[in-house]
Amino acid sequence: MEINPGDHEAKELYKLLIGCVVPRPIAWVTTLGPRGLVNLAPFSFFNAVCSSPPTVSISFSYKPTGGEDGDHRKDTLANLRREGEFVVNVASEPNEAVMNASAAEFPRSESELEALGLETAPSVRLKTPRLAVAPIALECVPVREIELGDGPGSATLVLGEVLRFVIQDRVIDERLRIDLAALRPIGRLAGTGYCYVREIFSLERPSYEEPTRESDG
Amino acid sequence: MEINPGDHEAKELYKLLIGCVVPRPIAWVTTLGPRGLVNLAPFSFFNAVCSSPPTVSISFSYKPTGGEDGDHRKDTLANLRREGEFVVNVASEPNEAVMNASAAEFPRSESELEALGLETAPSVRLKTPRLAVAPIALECVPVREIELGDGPGSATLVLGEVLRFVIQDRVIDERLRIDLAALRPIGRLAGTGYCYVREIFSLERPSYEEPTRESDG
Repeated sequence: MEINPGDHEAKELYKLLIGCVVPRPIAWVTTLGPRGLVNLAPFSFFNAVCSSPPTVSISFSYKPTGGEDGDHRKDTLANLRREGEFVVNVASEPNEAVMNASAAEFPRSESELEALGLETAPSVRLKTPRLAVAPIALECVPVREIELGDGPGSATLVLGEVLRFVIQDRVIDERLRIDLAALRPIGRLAGTGYCYVREIFSLERPSYEEPTRESDG
Repeated sequence: MEINPGDHEAKELYKLLIGCVVPRPIAWVTTLGPRGLVNLAPFSFFNAVCSSPPTVSISFSYKPTGGEDGDHRKDTLANLRREGEFVVNVASEPNEAVMNASAAEFPRSESELEALGLETAPSVRLKTPRLAVAPIALECVPVREIELGDGPGSATLVLGEVLRFVIQDRVIDERLRIDLAALRPIGRLAGTGYCYVREIFSLERPSYEEPTRESDG
């Protein structure tokens, strides 16, 4: 099947894209609201983009379905712009239900954390706290914004530099290797779908070997 | 454990980041080399960033380990700059070994596809072919480049607009929903690690309900 984006609405293209680009890592982001309330929401148009300086990207898309969800996403973006900081908390299996629940549209006057019974812990370099329950937190400052498209389905891509990695001792060793079995991360799929990261396999990085030629043999 | 990036080398930060941001989707990219040879390489600093226009991002990082791998990554970037196009093929279970093998450093004069016995199929809108074996191909043109950092661990983030989605009929239905069980995608982890996307669960998107107040009851 060949699909020409010009023949489809933003809403359909969104559903198609999130089915094609899987599995996506999840940034469970804390920001500070205008009156000091901690805001929390998950985003999966997220990845690492640079190792030095360590930098991540999150795209805040205005979902073409519109409505409150669009506003919700704008809250996180407005907060990180105003405060100049945000924390990417890593979502993991024990927190899957509450992470999903934090995607709901809470009124701006209510903190998702209080409503969901989540506790925070102070950050090292930022005013914005991290989630106490998250095994990994990346303390970030936004360093670049890129506007993409306009109208329904448009997005703002934010690049954030990681000032501190805060990692629970049980998920990392002294050589800075993350223990996936302890981390138990989850990935985002399309629709209401998520995946566990349990069936892991290893493929040795190959090196090129020059083909043996008959004339050599 | 608190990790200050300033205390670590780019190489260590790279290993840390790829352990923290998981699972990552894989872009298995075809580009056209200067003499028409098809180049192929996998990248996992990849995600969707916008649905209208449909846009993906790939970060081409110069691995701080340096050497030939850095050159290899630059080949894909040099090709997409020169030709103004690239194809993101989706890697899936049946192709895991050959996808990993395509990460090897092949000489610029040799096509990864020929060496690996992979066939191509013509694209709809681009000169660059897609992989015949890939269940999904996104025909892209680069629309934006962002340089990040400098020296070891620096990267070039490329945003690409999808001009055509080419999807095997067996993995998509008439409502444009991707069938994950048919797609069988794989995700990228740290080191030599990959994951299958087999253990899938669903969490209904929540909606906020105003708390019932005692005075109402």
